[in-house]
Amino acid sequence: MPARYRSFRCSVPWLMLLLQALFLICCFLGYPDVSNNYSLIEIYPEFQDVNHMVVFGFGFFLVVLRRYGFSSTGFNFLLFALGVQCSLLGEDLLCRAADCSLWSLEKAVVSMIAVVISTGAVLGKANPVQLIVMTLVELTFFYVSRCINRTFLKVSEHLSLMHVHLFGAYFGLALTSRFPEPPPRLDKNRSTPKSELFSVLGTVFVWVFWPSFNSILAVSPFKMGAVLNTYLALAVSAVSAFMLSALTSKDGKFRMAHIRSAVLAGGVTVSYTAHRIQHPWIAMILGLLGTAITILGSHCLQRCFNPALKLHDTSGVHFTFGLPAVLGAVAAVVLCFVEQGIETQWDDLSSLGYYIFDDIGAFCQTISTALITGFITGLILNTKLFKAMHVSKYFDDQVYWEVSFKMISV
Amino acid sequence: MPARYRSFRCSVPWLMLLLQALFLICCFLGYPDVSNNYSLIEIYPEFQDVNHMVVFGFGFFLVVLRRYGFSSTGFNFLLFALGVQCSLLGEDLLCRAADCSLWSLEKAVVSMIAVVISTGAVLGKANPVQLIVMTLVELTFFYVSRCINRTFLKVSEHLSLMHVHLFGAYFGLALTSRFPEPPPRLDKNRSTPKSELFSVLGTVFVWVFWPSFNSILAVSPFKMGAVLNTYLALAVSAVSAFMLSALTSKDGKFRMAHIRSAVLAGGVTVSYTAHRIQHPWIAMILGLLGTAITILGSHCLQRCFNPALKLHDTSGVHFTFGLPAVLGAVAAVVLCFVEQGIETQWDDLSSLGYYIFDDIGAFCQTISTALITGFITGLILNTKLFKAMHVSKYFDDQVYWEVSFKMISV
Amino acid sequence: MPARYRSFRCSVPWLMLLLQALFLICCFLGYPDVSNNYSLIEIYPEFQDVNHMVVFGFGFFLVVLRRYGFSSTGFNFLLFALGVQCSLLGEDLLCRAADCSLWSLEKAVVSMIAVVISTGAVLGKANPVQLIVMTLVELTFFYVSRCINRTFLKVSEHLSLMHVHLFGAYFGLALTSRFPEPPPRLDKNRSTPKSELFSVLGTVFVWVFWPSFNSILAVSPFKMGAVLNTYLALAVSAVSAFMLSALTSKDGKFRMAHIRSAVLAGGVTVSYTAHRIQHPWIAMILGLLGTAITILGSHCLQRCFNPALKLHDTSGVHFTFGLPAVLGAVAAVVLCFVEQGIETQWDDLSSLGYYIFDDIGAFCQTISTALITGFITGLILNTKLFKAMHVSKYFDDQVYWEVSFKMISV
Repeated sequence: MPARYRSFRCSVPWLMLLLQALFLICCFLGYPDVSNNYSLIEIYPEFQDVNHMVVFGFGFFLVVLRRYGFSSTGFNFLLFALGVQCSLLGEDLLCRAADCSLWSLEKAVVSMIAVVISTGAVLGKANPVQLIVMTLVELTFFYVSRCINRTFLKVSEHLSLMHVHLFGAYFGLALTSRFPEPPPRLDKNRSTPKSELFSVLGTVFVWVFWPSFNSILAVSPFKMGAVLNTYLALAVSAVSAFMLSALTSKDGKFRMAHIRSAVLAGGVTVSYTAHRIQHPWIAMILGLLGTAITILGSHCLQRCFNPALKLHDTSGVHFTFGLPAVLGAVAAVVLCFVEQGIETQWDDLSSLGYYIFDDIGAFCQTISTALITGFITGLILNTKLFKAMHVSKYFDDQVYWEVSFKMISV
Repeated sequence: MPARYRSFRCSVPWLMLLLQALFLICCFLGYPDVSNNYSLIEIYPEFQDVNHMVVFGFGFFLVVLRRYGFSSTGFNFLLFALGVQCSLLGEDLLCRAADCSLWSLEKAVVSMIAVVISTGAVLGKANPVQLIVMTLVELTFFYVSRCINRTFLKVSEHLSLMHVHLFGAYFGLALTSRFPEPPPRLDKNRSTPKSELFSVLGTVFVWVFWPSFNSILAVSPFKMGAVLNTYLALAVSAVSAFMLSALTSKDGKFRMAHIRSAVLAGGVTVSYTAHRIQHPWIAMILGLLGTAITILGSHCLQRCFNPALKLHDTSGVHFTFGLPAVLGAVAAVVLCFVEQGIETQWDDLSSLGYYIFDDIGAFCQTISTALITGFITGLILNTKLFKAMHVSKYFDDQVYWEVSFKMISV
Repeated sequence: MPARYRSFRCSVPWLMLLLQALFLICCFLGYPDVSNNYSLIEIYPEFQDVNHMVVFGFGFFLVVLRRYGFSSTGFNFLLFALGVQCSLLGEDLLCRAADCSLWSLEKAVVSMIAVVISTGAVLGKANPVQLIVMTLVELTFFYVSRCINRTFLKVSEHLSLMHVHLFGAYFGLALTSRFPEPPPRLDKNRSTPKSELFSVLGTVFVWVFWPSFNSILAVSPFKMGAVLNTYLALAVSAVSAFMLSALTSKDGKFRMAHIRSAVLAGGVTVSYTAHRIQHPWIAMILGLLGTAITILGSHCLQRCFNPALKLHDTSGVHFTFGLPAVLGAVAAVVLCFVEQGIETQWDDLSSLGYYIFDDIGAFCQTISTALITGFITGLILNTKLFKAMHVSKYFDDQVYWEVSFKMISV
């Protein structure tokens, strides 16, 4: 036991120190100036919403496990602070930005959502070293995937960033497939009403700020539409989550786990299209379908798909973010097709095909990059070098935090 | 027992499905477009404040009961998502709005406060079907009451919406009078320090965002005044809440329940007049009086009035929102009278009477509509059709949520 | 025992009543009008951020002690509501402001941070009467200290307010030195994982809103720089907090207490210079140094300095806010020196000395005023008049709140 603990002291802090030193040097060499572009101050309230949503909302969204509260919020916070620097520097240095501005910070914060989602899939199973390496690798590959989308498939900056849910969920899923499964009767892998209440707190935060997230990258005339469509999709999603939870559970009771994951589905589903949808009923239908796919998906996946593939997806990111994002991507293609079709009066079908080719290409490229790189990262992280945790040590704050057993059980 | 549970599965989800389908159809038929009125983006931060306050703040404000945490936040969330759609569609379709804009969404969110307050009165006693029906009926009647105020009594849009506390509190009160009283020694009808702490968390949220709420509907030159007056009234209210709590309780200790309800009284009291008050000391006096009426009211009502009328007002909405709103309405009349009097140098007393007639009329109309419709709704909700809960099942998450007894008692 | 309780009823509420009446009279006599300066509405979102951070964030930041949750948030809330009125009136009446505007409210809220920090030092040891008197005295002396800085040392309004951490921490420290030390084996002086989780919740809030706090008083062209530099400093701070916590603790585990105090150090350190720093790497280095001084300081102070001086600093404000603020002040002087030196090409060393003289003077004046007035206040507060608590009653909600022992132990 002491050996394992000592090993963390020899690895975690030095890894962080190394990275922090690297970021500092990059920053020293790369950045001429801090931007005083004052016109950006008007997006500051929205930026704060999104920032708050990622740090606080997702941090508490993940506090589900009975004995993993400190790690859930704490590691989310640590990875955010590391990742946002990494992402900011990568973004700016590679683009040779003239200065560090709120705009690049915004993109860095949005990119971090991929990492937060992937963390959910390996929650309680990966140790800090693995999580930190995962963060860096994932941000790099997400950046590469976005570059491919932008350069070869002419996807706009805004849309390429909206693939963040898709990338995060499937990267996390491929990653978690390489971690040993916890034994099915593990007691620590449970939630208590108090931990659920903290998680609800985080979920409501994320729900409230989602319209800001979907609109923050939209170009200004479309911002308002993005807010309203997302708001409606989320409202429908919340209602449907309660509806389907009562329909699918035993005795017709509500299940908090369902509701937590399904209320956000509407926001994920419309993230690609919120700025473009003209008629609110389309957003509402997407919200409904998103929730349906989440709750039905959670049943099918947890009963058939996951056991067959020996997947263990701790906080269910596959159905919470993955499936709605797939649905959203499909919906974006269909909507684009119909819109262009109506515009050209279905005359020029070949050009129609061309229009949707890019969208489908970007979708396929993103999902396959996520799966392949996630799988490889998972293989690497489970080599001896990273000292993966034994399954009996899963889901336990005591391994990483100075906290007495007696106190936790209170 | 199983019969009762099965019955919820046959009613709650289908009712939600029906309503959601109805909203979708209304939206499909009624709305031409989503607004891209970009000028409204500047009210977005305030809108977010109010939205956050209603969903998150009030959701956790209600987490008081020991075993009713999931239902308090969960049902508040569900009713909000349902009600905001209903209110938005009602508002826009009946006004034949050209498009769905942030402005109509704002009014929908503000209207929802009536429902949230009424929910507080029947907290733990009404089942989800009853709550959903209550939401729809209450929003309809609040809309009708506002239309009467606007059309016949020439009350401005802003003021007609500020009657939301008055309507919500008295509707809830009349409603709860028709629910069977819980037995006085019921153990579940208690709070624990942990549940109180969550409730404090919600209260502080509501307190912080109240200035945004009072100013959101004010016309722009008066917005700043509304913010400052509300802020001062709330500050005085908070101090007086502690003061009066220590004076009225046994041993001179503070009582958290007092403080939770009384710190908000100042905000409710100045809601009618915050945009119009010229001298900050008036707002401060109103804050002080609001708190005084809340704490003294809580003593009188809980000891004399409620037992006599067999009322059981779970989270004390009568003294938390009802009495301060009455005080605020009276203060609005007095202030208007004095203001006009000074302006006309007390010359034209008959025209003075005319000025205040509208305000008094709107107040009386609102309160009587709330009481009558609330009473009728209460009668209808307690018919066999709605399968009202037995008193022994009150205040218990287990009836509606998949959560084990053992876990809750932790 | 009952005698002690009765004594609070005879003192606390009447003191509050007296103060509130005084504020009302001041407001009545002093204020002509509420400002309708509508141009200030654009700083409202930032003002809300800071307001939220102080009331909610710091309120829950202090919820660490096992049995002191109600008092931590409750008294923070009470002192805030009292202090903000006192500060607002002092600010405006002494400056003979024409009207009450958001600008003066902003300064009042920022000043309150000094009180909140000092409260942290005597958390659980001072009774409400002592806390209220402390609030008034501290705000008065902070105002005096700011006036001296502004008038004699030509420090700008913005910078003079940024001494708030320094003043708060050292005032609190000098104050707490006059309170009897709690016995070392006191059981109530502990935290539980649940109370820590609430505290983390508050900490994350404060962390998220710190960029708004550092930029709120900056003049507009420098606002954006202040936001970005603070953001980067905080991110580095968070990473370093985890790194140093793992390095300094037993077994290489993280310690939540370290992390809670150290993640904020970066924000405190750059508070003097955030608006002026041109190169982001400087802000990052300051964040790193701030965290290092906090964590190393927490070790040295708690082991050597505090026992030697018989200091008991409940929530460690000395190393959380005091040391980083000292570092920040030193950094400000060095940066100013280097900047001016580069500008004048190190020609005119005597004028350089003159430039930094003001900064050093302001720093020394603030810290000595804080220490002296804090010490005197501590002496006065521990006279018989204020009925200081006996050490056995420290850290206990039950002394001030109606809450049963049995319930707290749950």
